[in-house]
Amino acid sequence: MDNASDDAPSAAGPDVEITRRTLLAGALGAAGAALVGAIPTRAPVATPAAVPGGGSQGTAAAPPDPTRVPGSATRAVGERAPFVHLAREPAGLVVGHSLTPLQDLCGTITPSDLHFERHHAGVPAIDPAQYRLLIHGLVERPLVFTLADLQRFPARSRTYFLECSGNGRAGYRGMSPASTPQTIDGLTSTSEWTGVPLATLLREAGVRPGARWLLAEGSDAAVMTRSIPLTKALDDALVAYGQNGEPLRPEQGYPVRLFLPGWEGNANVKWLRRIKVGDEAFMTREETARYTDALPQEDARQFSFVMDAKSIITFPAYPTVLPGRGWWEIRGIAWSGRGRIAGVDVSTDGGATWTAAVLQEPVLPIAHTRFRHLWEWGGAPATLMSRARDETGYVQPTTAVLRAVRGPGTGYHYNNIRAWDVDAAGRVTFAARVEAPA
Amino acid sequence: MDNASDDAPSAAGPDVEITRRTLLAGALGAAGAALVGAIPTRAPVATPAAVPGGGSQGTAAAPPDPTRVPGSATRAVGERAPFVHLAREPAGLVVGHSLTPLQDLCGTITPSDLHFERHHAGVPAIDPAQYRLLIHGLVERPLVFTLADLQRFPARSRTYFLECSGNGRAGYRGMSPASTPQTIDGLTSTSEWTGVPLATLLREAGVRPGARWLLAEGSDAAVMTRSIPLTKALDDALVAYGQNGEPLRPEQGYPVRLFLPGWEGNANVKWLRRIKVGDEAFMTREETARYTDALPQEDARQFSFVMDAKSIITFPAYPTVLPGRGWWEIRGIAWSGRGRIAGVDVSTDGGATWTAAVLQEPVLPIAHTRFRHLWEWGGAPATLMSRARDETGYVQPTTAVLRAVRGPGTGYHYNNIRAWDVDAAGRVTFAARVEAPA
Repeated sequence: MDNASDDAPSAAGPDVEITRRTLLAGALGAAGAALVGAIPTRAPVATPAAVPGGGSQGTAAAPPDPTRVPGSATRAVGERAPFVHLAREPAGLVVGHSLTPLQDLCGTITPSDLHFERHHAGVPAIDPAQYRLLIHGLVERPLVFTLADLQRFPARSRTYFLECSGNGRAGYRGMSPASTPQTIDGLTSTSEWTGVPLATLLREAGVRPGARWLLAEGSDAAVMTRSIPLTKALDDALVAYGQNGEPLRPEQGYPVRLFLPGWEGNANVKWLRRIKVGDEAFMTREETARYTDALPQEDARQFSFVMDAKSIITFPAYPTVLPGRGWWEIRGIAWSGRGRIAGVDVSTDGGATWTAAVLQEPVLPIAHTRFRHLWEWGGAPATLMSRARDETGYVQPTTAVLRAVRGPGTGYHYNNIRAWDVDAAGRVTFAARVEAPA
Repeated sequence: MDNASDDAPSAAGPDVEITRRTLLAGALGAAGAALVGAIPTRAPVATPAAVPGGGSQGTAAAPPDPTRVPGSATRAVGERAPFVHLAREPAGLVVGHSLTPLQDLCGTITPSDLHFERHHAGVPAIDPAQYRLLIHGLVERPLVFTLADLQRFPARSRTYFLECSGNGRAGYRGMSPASTPQTIDGLTSTSEWTGVPLATLLREAGVRPGARWLLAEGSDAAVMTRSIPLTKALDDALVAYGQNGEPLRPEQGYPVRLFLPGWEGNANVKWLRRIKVGDEAFMTREETARYTDALPQEDARQFSFVMDAKSIITFPAYPTVLPGRGWWEIRGIAWSGRGRIAGVDVSTDGGATWTAAVLQEPVLPIAHTRFRHLWEWGGAPATLMSRARDETGYVQPTTAVLRAVRGPGTGYHYNNIRAWDVDAAGRVTFAARVEAPA
């Protein structure tokens, strides 16, 4: 620390003192404790925040004094710092998914190259010049749109989460303590989506009397198809071509996807090439053989589109080891397909008592909402939980309640409360049980 | 269009008809005209929207029918479609800047790898494990923070624009008709920033009586330094480590930068290593030799931190050529360092008449706000302008007014109204004159 070293205190001196003071008046009032210096350097030193850039991971190099050497030049397209390691997983699956590293992210926007993936036959390569969208069926005028046609219409941009209906399976059945936020809930991501309202296109085509459902079809090798109620199409559905300010990424449907705010991911058909208007649901294989929720009795929920309110603590979470007692900010995200998050309660005693967390403003409807809760860890074992409530009054259920209603074998819509155990050594693991102790 | 081709109409048939209809009831009412099919294929076909993905640019390939071949597998980190070409420019400058391609973006978030760059001695490489921030001077307790220390404090995430104080120079002096939104105003970008309030850190250190200014110092090879009023530091300043959900990009200050919402970029010191609290401004070279605004008389504005309200139409803009008459959506962004954009007026007749544009919700304070205005081009020459107004009542001035106040030679804070000329052939150029005709 070149220029500064003259009057720089040693890190040890003031830090030792600071751990005994009670400051942070803004967040904690007079009873709060200082955080700085409370982090000893014993191994393994978990990065104690939601951003992974804090840890050097070996391969990168930096000069001892960066003020002594010229830096690098401007670039057409930037790259992450070599010390930053962010990755979806698993990679290499033609049929399957990859998960967003929720525990490594801060804020609410998901970087586009880390948005979760889910595809049934790989990511198709589509030439935008050859792209066409057909709208036909029960319409006055069948229409074919080029990408340029779609982009010429009045546009809309909105920040929405998108979540796979199977997200959270690892937090509902076959649970393991060695689960991360990524492996539990990494099939949700938030972006600013841009496109033309589907209602605008349907108005162009002229929906005929009797129309009640749409078929949406993708141009991937699975020819993914879902039936969508016309009411949703005319409400807030987008034919989207933009994501976080740029064109859709290939794995998100480039050049065009359907976007149905708050509805399960598979219905948001990617690589959208056809919309057929009909008078009833089309009963594709995706809504007969798949994407229905088996119930404990003989029934099943079909067309269970809306994603219910959910939340997950992303810090502290496995594999974090809290390096010391004291004040820690519990951080996580909450979201609901029904609208805004109205509140998130946090428990540090396994659900016995709950305290309202602070929500990061602005709280946008149908978008990841970050919550924060300052917690003083005294060193005893603890179980951390979060419980989201949305503006409709819906409250995230416990695992036991959800299993009683849906049964242990249901395949989708796992929005039960997640819990993390902290042991006396500060080790955090997923509370892999049907009900955490209260 | 495999499955769809049975009942697919030919593109030519309905399109010809549609150009004669008047639809789009939602946006235009019964008087509106249909957009679809109004785009002839004569060359050059400008991509008529804010997203550049619409054009195939030669090097990429896609199968004729993507449903016939398996797609690509999941990836740890995604990549843009090979048809998408987004780039800052110029690249390769150790001392200088690169500009965000505003005309190629949609929505309000700037992808992190396209955020504008500005540095005085290149982008330093900093090992996060070696990173330290010193706070000293008029404080009770000088402190040194590691990155992990900073990340442990209660965090805040907010969406803010960041703009270089010199942005817009090409729209004020030495103007050229062959200017794009990128070359005129590409030194502004918007991200969701995450960090710890500087007020929290100053509370830890204990600001002593008499303190009124801070010195913020970077660890680049220019050792960039600026004086910051203590009032701003205690108001909304962030010590930021996150950008759009991930760690800061290197060219944005990795691992830590100062962020002063609404204030000129150079004061938002990147690669922040030191904050010294003092009783007066430090008069660094950046506020004596640079970053002051010369005025027509002998005076100069010093410490002119706040970025005034501004807007620019990003479509249509040079080098777009409108391929036909009819309805086009004028699109652009507006922003103000003083808070929310209250309104944007658009003129299509060189400022003679103005109409309120639609603002994209949510309108966030100190963030790019997208505006949209549907315009029917009849084929005659036109001059397009936008005029932003913020919640304080401040209105973006004309070029003539700004030049009268600041003089032709001022070096920063060019927020004059920008104008684009459209000729009878649909060619759009920057209106490179002090005052557009009214």
